[in-house]
Amino acid sequence: MTRMTSTLVLLRHGESVWNAKNLFTGWVDVDLSDTGRSEAVAGGRMLADAGVLPDVVHTSVLRRAITTAHLALDAADRHWIPVRRDWRLNERHYGDLQGKDKKQTMEQFGEEQFMLWRRSYDTPPPPIADDNEYSQQGDPRYAHLGDQMPRTECLKDVVARLVPYWETEIRADLEAGHTVLVAAHGNSLRALVKHLDGIGDDEIAALNIPTGMPLVYELDDDFTPVTKGGRYLDPEAAATAAAAVANQGR
Amino acid sequence: MTRMTSTLVLLRHGESVWNAKNLFTGWVDVDLSDTGRSEAVAGGRMLADAGVLPDVVHTSVLRRAITTAHLALDAADRHWIPVRRDWRLNERHYGDLQGKDKKQTMEQFGEEQFMLWRRSYDTPPPPIADDNEYSQQGDPRYAHLGDQMPRTECLKDVVARLVPYWETEIRADLEAGHTVLVAAHGNSLRALVKHLDGIGDDEIAALNIPTGMPLVYELDDDFTPVTKGGRYLDPEAAATAAAAVANQGR
Repeated sequence: MTRMTSTLVLLRHGESVWNAKNLFTGWVDVDLSDTGRSEAVAGGRMLADAGVLPDVVHTSVLRRAITTAHLALDAADRHWIPVRRDWRLNERHYGDLQGKDKKQTMEQFGEEQFMLWRRSYDTPPPPIADDNEYSQQGDPRYAHLGDQMPRTECLKDVVARLVPYWETEIRADLEAGHTVLVAAHGNSLRALVKHLDGIGDDEIAALNIPTGMPLVYELDDDFTPVTKGGRYLDPEAAATAAAAVANQGR
Repeated sequence: MTRMTSTLVLLRHGESVWNAKNLFTGWVDVDLSDTGRSEAVAGGRMLADAGVLPDVVHTSVLRRAITTAHLALDAADRHWIPVRRDWRLNERHYGDLQGKDKKQTMEQFGEEQFMLWRRSYDTPPPPIADDNEYSQQGDPRYAHLGDQMPRTECLKDVVARLVPYWETEIRADLEAGHTVLVAAHGNSLRALVKHLDGIGDDEIAALNIPTGMPLVYELDDDFTPVTKGGRYLDPEAAATAAAAVANQGR
């Protein structure tokens, strides 16, 4: 009997104009910075150089992930593959913190509360008001969600919406034998990695995923990672970048 | 009884690096020029300004149409809509002329033969050899076509592959009530317009579609255009640009 493995590639979007300004972003649909565009192109070149060629791409419905996928696939000469987009790959909704400065928020609420909102598994920030300028109320891309549209999320909420998408949409493409690229966000990818690697609710706080660095999982025929944690195509650069993410807001 | 109309938007990709050099392109997967990128963004802004907001986009599998769609939709804040890609929206395959200079080709073969290849309905250029550097032989995006992959096409061939795609994939989205954007090429869009407007095999030679100018068709419930020829969001600019296309190679 031959053993079938499939390949899943995770790519966190490059720097956005709000990452650069150190603001909480969440579902606010900000653009990539020029640095972020370069990161996306570099990520695509890494894929091409490693011969890891996606057959299908899944993205969130946020511009920074969509443009990252476009630029990376264009650089890898895979711009023509089928595209799927879904809000369930979105970044964590940051509630009332959306649009707020990370450093000011830490000073205002103290490091303990700040870290609880950023890294606890099940404590969401306060919900965003519908009349807040950074609310997604009335955004047509979420109209089909009706009352179910999140107003804030903790990582546990992200896991709850993401895992069903993984189990139906992404796994279906892997089962069809496709190499799948998922271009998404820090917290939606942490939620996916938590599920794939079976990381505990407390342990996930320590996991940081760097931007623009393709993370490749070979998956067993029951979708268990052959190597826990997958492998970065450039492991050294990824370790340096992950450490920088951990220190955001300091 | 209410009468249902649906909205179809056609967008020819902006200038490519080979348009700028006056080379026959066909299926060669060249990039947009900087001018072409600006045209795509301007086209997207026209859509937003006119309130013509696509719900789904169809593109060819060629980079210049894919990037045009990405840039236009991003400018219109519709980057998040579902995407479909299909080779049947590709530019006409230009056979052995791919990669050749238009002016030199006219001088070498004479204006009569040149215009026959460019504008006759049913005379394809000579087929491209599989070992020609501009052949698509071995390109993974066409692997599923096997022996059916074109080596040259006349406009009649484009109509023959495009109309089934229109009748199944594009019409299905219109029937679902979606405003549909088709981002494609001079000849695949001419083939579609010929079919929509019922233009004769001889008359279609005179039709030129300008780049980067959204062409909007309101369609009846039997998919007949409410206004033959549709309407350009900027009719004056479109007329000037179409005249320029007609004079290519002169």
